[in-house]
Amino acid sequence: MQNDSNFTFVLFGGTGDLSMRKILPALFEAHRGGMLAEGGKIVAVARAAEDRDAYLDWVNEHVKPHVSKNGVDDAVWKGFLARFVYVRLDLGKPEDFKLLRDAVNELGGTRVFYLATGPSLFVPICRALADVGLNENARIVLEKPLGYDLKSSKAINDAVGEIFAEEQIYRIDHYLGKEPVQNLLALRFGNALFEPLWRREWVESIQITIAEELGVEARGDFYDNTGALRDMVQNHLLQLLSIVTMEPPHSMDSDSVRDEKLRVLRALKPVDPRDISKVAVRGQYHAGVIKGTSVPAYATEKGVRPDSHTETFVALKVEIENWRWAGVPFFLRTGKRLADRTAEIVVNFRPVPHSALGGTALRAGANRLVIRLQPNETIRLYCLAKQPGEGMNLASVHLDLAFDKFFKEGQMEAYQRLLLDVINGRLALFVRRDEQEAAWRYVEPILDEWAASQKPPKPYASGTWGPAAASAMLAQHGTCWLEEEN
Amino acid sequence: MQNDSNFTFVLFGGTGDLSMRKILPALFEAHRGGMLAEGGKIVAVARAAEDRDAYLDWVNEHVKPHVSKNGVDDAVWKGFLARFVYVRLDLGKPEDFKLLRDAVNELGGTRVFYLATGPSLFVPICRALADVGLNENARIVLEKPLGYDLKSSKAINDAVGEIFAEEQIYRIDHYLGKEPVQNLLALRFGNALFEPLWRREWVESIQITIAEELGVEARGDFYDNTGALRDMVQNHLLQLLSIVTMEPPHSMDSDSVRDEKLRVLRALKPVDPRDISKVAVRGQYHAGVIKGTSVPAYATEKGVRPDSHTETFVALKVEIENWRWAGVPFFLRTGKRLADRTAEIVVNFRPVPHSALGGTALRAGANRLVIRLQPNETIRLYCLAKQPGEGMNLASVHLDLAFDKFFKEGQMEAYQRLLLDVINGRLALFVRRDEQEAAWRYVEPILDEWAASQKPPKPYASGTWGPAAASAMLAQHGTCWLEEEN
Repeated sequence: MQNDSNFTFVLFGGTGDLSMRKILPALFEAHRGGMLAEGGKIVAVARAAEDRDAYLDWVNEHVKPHVSKNGVDDAVWKGFLARFVYVRLDLGKPEDFKLLRDAVNELGGTRVFYLATGPSLFVPICRALADVGLNENARIVLEKPLGYDLKSSKAINDAVGEIFAEEQIYRIDHYLGKEPVQNLLALRFGNALFEPLWRREWVESIQITIAEELGVEARGDFYDNTGALRDMVQNHLLQLLSIVTMEPPHSMDSDSVRDEKLRVLRALKPVDPRDISKVAVRGQYHAGVIKGTSVPAYATEKGVRPDSHTETFVALKVEIENWRWAGVPFFLRTGKRLADRTAEIVVNFRPVPHSALGGTALRAGANRLVIRLQPNETIRLYCLAKQPGEGMNLASVHLDLAFDKFFKEGQMEAYQRLLLDVINGRLALFVRRDEQEAAWRYVEPILDEWAASQKPPKPYASGTWGPAAASAMLAQHGTCWLEEEN
Repeated sequence: MQNDSNFTFVLFGGTGDLSMRKILPALFEAHRGGMLAEGGKIVAVARAAEDRDAYLDWVNEHVKPHVSKNGVDDAVWKGFLARFVYVRLDLGKPEDFKLLRDAVNELGGTRVFYLATGPSLFVPICRALADVGLNENARIVLEKPLGYDLKSSKAINDAVGEIFAEEQIYRIDHYLGKEPVQNLLALRFGNALFEPLWRREWVESIQITIAEELGVEARGDFYDNTGALRDMVQNHLLQLLSIVTMEPPHSMDSDSVRDEKLRVLRALKPVDPRDISKVAVRGQYHAGVIKGTSVPAYATEKGVRPDSHTETFVALKVEIENWRWAGVPFFLRTGKRLADRTAEIVVNFRPVPHSALGGTALRAGANRLVIRLQPNETIRLYCLAKQPGEGMNLASVHLDLAFDKFFKEGQMEAYQRLLLDVINGRLALFVRRDEQEAAWRYVEPILDEWAASQKPPKPYASGTWGPAAASAMLAQHGTCWLEEEN
């Protein structure tokens, strides 16, 4: 889909890790796919590179390897490099921003400012942009972490909000750009089949898991001050939960969808600090073995305090206080160094109200819909069927849908889609301020309680599915985490 | 499942076609599977064979080829033959029935009389059995055709009913013994998932097709006096319809299930003769090509009158006048010499009530559940999913369940299951008198109207899906027959 509207994409932190791994490769794929307007420019802003040539050398050396797995046509790559303008900029020097202003004004088109920098720089950059008038007719893209808690999140939003209107602000949660998450919307609202069943009358419980095999890698220092609740639950898991549970929106326009997500986030049953042990489990990985490789304990990772109480695993029981979901438990779970890398949503339906088929029918289990987001996108519907032969004995079988069987091409990385959405002014997949703050409001009592607690997180061996307490929490509701093979 | 209760299985028409192809092979499979009581005996009744040895020669020659595709162990076959008793019997001679009585009384166990004879012999045989007291503590099995219309069906039922109580009478509709038809019950009543959707609010229309590639074969004479409406619709198709649409039964016991089926059959909207052309299409095959082989026209088949108006194809639009199904059209279709041999049920769900995803969502179609009974048993659920890439464009995808993937063994032929049900006294899969008569009552106005009409059936070329009028009938409801590849 060629876009005819011109743009100037200004990338702060142009030599940073995120630019190298995600943003520039995503822009290249959009370029290669003919999805960028011909005159669209990328203005890389950094301090490290001397000039444009030096910057392009860096791009050739560091970005090209990330896009070349499918082979890169020389002419296409050259065309991509031709889009680049380089502005060397010292954030402390207002006159540098004037140079940036002149460059951007000369290029014209829709202005996009992508702040691929640490969050402490968000406000200073925004103010400097405003000082030279670049906040007008512009879009600004912010990355997580957007604050450390409700208060700091509000502070950033207030400061940025003085300079940019809410509809100019694109807060990225890259989970929302993932193809399977988009497909969740299609599944729920493009099919008449699921919506009637998608409610307390028929759903017994829902699980959402995002499991990683990786540890903290090079981010020990950052992670030890963050933890899984801030890093994964406040944003990705609560966003997924809101998409799974929201009411049908009027349309896919940005505020219709975000209004409905917000309604869910505001309906989350607040955690009573006295009940915290019943609804929240935190864990921290110890040494262990993942798929044959020994890995060290979290407390011995570089940048981590040896006596750290930071959680690398969270399991929550969440309730939604509305007509549709009252009384249905939602179990969220995320962690590092778990047994497998997977993200999935499991909808457990209630058993049949009356077993006309006799006792074996009930023992064979209930219906279940498993929507796997990664590593491979699949939908699996578990049903009961009659076993062949005499009598009426049921057994569990499943219907399968593997997306890669139907769609051979066109898959798009989350960042590519989201950047195209920014350039084209589509806000639906970006997090609105009120959503973000509702999510902080929900997790804050848990953050506070854990910060105040003397009790350390529950240990779990790397390569397992987290502490036993996470399973015990579900057992109290007569259910268990689904841990199936593919 | 070994059955300990002894039985004596008396087979009238012991050297007939049905005995050779279906009944004796089914009994052998039950024997081979260890499902028959050790002392259970088969009393073959015929006139053709001189004595037991001659009969066993016939069994060796004519039955063994039908069971030996999986290889037959000599000892197992010998054990099967050891179950046989032979009674040479002339139906006209009362003293022959006394010999039969003595043989049966000596053998003991549950008495089963299977009348694998023409329907004109049903009543004489029953009377002769009664004359020697063999109707007591006995079960009688009757095969289609059970009458030619409501009146003749009632006459048979009245006459047999004077001799046997209803709960002694096992009317076979072998479709009810098919594993996939059983599975329909499991699907509907063993899963909480489908029942909420299985009603007028969510279902737009339902199609049931039984298509044959074969023509009338050697049965031209019989078929020309019968036609597809009597041969397939009155029994198999209406039975399938009743299983697809019945209310959940209290249990699987015989009268719970049959009561619910009866309620549907009695709720069928009567056909108004003036509307017949809107709700019923009859066709007759002409010459054509099926999978590369030329086949002749029906009117030139052996035993068929050259100017015959007998239908070899029927398509009906049926309505059910009850709370659950009011206004939902059911399209039934069966025919000979069609493009493929298949039996399937297609549930077309309504489109989404509101297209939050935009216009492309509606154009991509609606949900559909396809339950294929033959040639291979599968369930396929059509959903809409997002096409990869920018925007929200939907495409149809499907979830698949192939039963043979889950259940490698234990498949049972319809006759085997039904005969075991007779021996074990399970009536649920047999047609009760009131059901049968309700089905006749439904088809009779169509039979009468067609008999009175001067218009011949619509012609269709062999190897097609029947006359165009059958498609036009659906087009009036904005739908079409599903004709998909596997």
